Amino acid sequence: MGTTQLESVPEPKYWHLKTVLTEALDSEFSVGEILPNERDLAARFGVARATLRQALEQLELEGRLQRRRGVGTTVAPPRVGVAVGTEQHTWPGAAQDAWQPVDSAQETPPAAVAAGLETGPDDAVHTVRRSRMSHGQLVATELLYIPADSVPDLTAIDAPSGPARARAVLRELQRLDLEGQDRAVELGSARADDARELDRLPGSPVLVVTTRFFARGGRTAALSVATYRADTCRLTFGDSAGVEIHHDPERQAS
Amino acid sequence: MGTTQLESVPEPKYWHLKTVLTEALDSEFSVGEILPNERDLAARFGVARATLRQALEQLELEGRLQRRRGVGTTVAPPRVGVAVGTEQHTWPGAAQDAWQPVDSAQETPPAAVAAGLETGPDDAVHTVRRSRMSHGQLVATELLYIPADSVPDLTAIDAPSGPARARAVLRELQRLDLEGQDRAVELGSARADDARELDRLPGSPVLVVTTRFFARGGRTAALSVATYRADTCRLTFGDSAGVEIHHDPERQAS
Repeated sequence: MGTTQLESVPEPKYWHLKTVLTEALDSEFSVGEILPNERDLAARFGVARATLRQALEQLELEGRLQRRRGVGTTVAPPRVGVAVGTEQHTWPGAAQDAWQPVDSAQETPPAAVAAGLETGPDDAVHTVRRSRMSHGQLVATELLYIPADSVPDLTAIDAPSGPARARAVLRELQRLDLEGQDRAVELGSARADDARELDRLPGSPVLVVTTRFFARGGRTAALSVATYRADTCRLTFGDSAGVEIHHDPERQAS
Repeated sequence: MGTTQLESVPEPKYWHLKTVLTEALDSEFSVGEILPNERDLAARFGVARATLRQALEQLELEGRLQRRRGVGTTVAPPRVGVAVGTEQHTWPGAAQDAWQPVDSAQETPPAAVAAGLETGPDDAVHTVRRSRMSHGQLVATELLYIPADSVPDLTAIDAPSGPARARAVLRELQRLDLEGQDRAVELGSARADDARELDRLPGSPVLVVTTRFFARGGRTAALSVATYRADTCRLTFGDSAGVEIHHDPERQAS
């Protein structure tokens, strides 16, 4: 951008290597192809193993490479756009919801969730676990927290757990008037159970989307914590969900 | 959630350590405090240095710890909510825009940006570099790409670069009718120049927000690539921007 101060910053060695590797990925490798091992790659580019590993980590963060235990490092397909925000507000489980109910239970939520729901620290709430597929792949898991007073008539059902109970809880929730919702996206690390479902290693970077659903009067009637694969997903927001940018500008900007 | 399959997955050792460390952070340390060195911490918790390091990396991903060169590992303040999506669509630089113009130039955009803008691969476009402060800290940098035909009357200005040129470009852009916009959020790694501005190490995880601005007829009139610090920011979307969840449910859910 023409500012001398920035131009004088020397880029670290692995950063230059990353650029060279990116060009090699574009020209020599196809999606799904397994990369040569680290020793051969380091020799080819004339760098230390540690430098190579840093560059590979960056390319993994940017979604260009996937590292899988027992397989090795492969060239990743382009990230898939997954619609998260729409201008139309609907309860979870409403028609055309992209999520599939998996299970449901009653448990005491984490302290921060209890604070958000304004329930007591020891109050049990209904939980609904759901998963989301996109392009034939599981891309996200979700834990929905629903206080008992959002679904006051739920006691009548006789499904103790499983998808049937999950659907019953969501059906009851939909009887409330939805006043609005808000969302936050942040970086997180995959918990062991989410990691297993998402086919990632525990602790892998994930995108955590927290959604609050407001009933009449602004009361938080439900809170959703969704964990998206950060390696394969880009979360899309806005009113032209059909249009997608299929490339990653950041990736090619260096 | 009561599914036997998931409960039988043993959590890796560093994951358990992470939980123990989180409790120690909550009870014994205050925000900004420097943690003991790795050797002492590993001894205290009876784990190998490698295990400790993995746990520290997870806590860094989740925004609980910050590692800074020359300072050490400190306890991070809670993440700050930064409003990204609003239901009201406005051009960049409109009233109450949170971004400050820094510089402007003409350059050939990366191939993916050129494709998004439907400009030729060698066409120069106007670029505007901006930065965003929140709570007294620089939280994001942005590069806006604006094709010449979105600002046809710009040639008249005589500011060759700098914030004055940036403001002139944005002023011209605002003369177009804005039909809509969409956004995508994905994981990225900080480029050396962004990293320096954001006070991060090159390659640190960042949240990359790509916004397309549509003029009448659905033409992409401008494209913004914004890089947010992932350690200190949670991106908020929705119609109740004033309300924020100050805790991270994911953090305490394990």
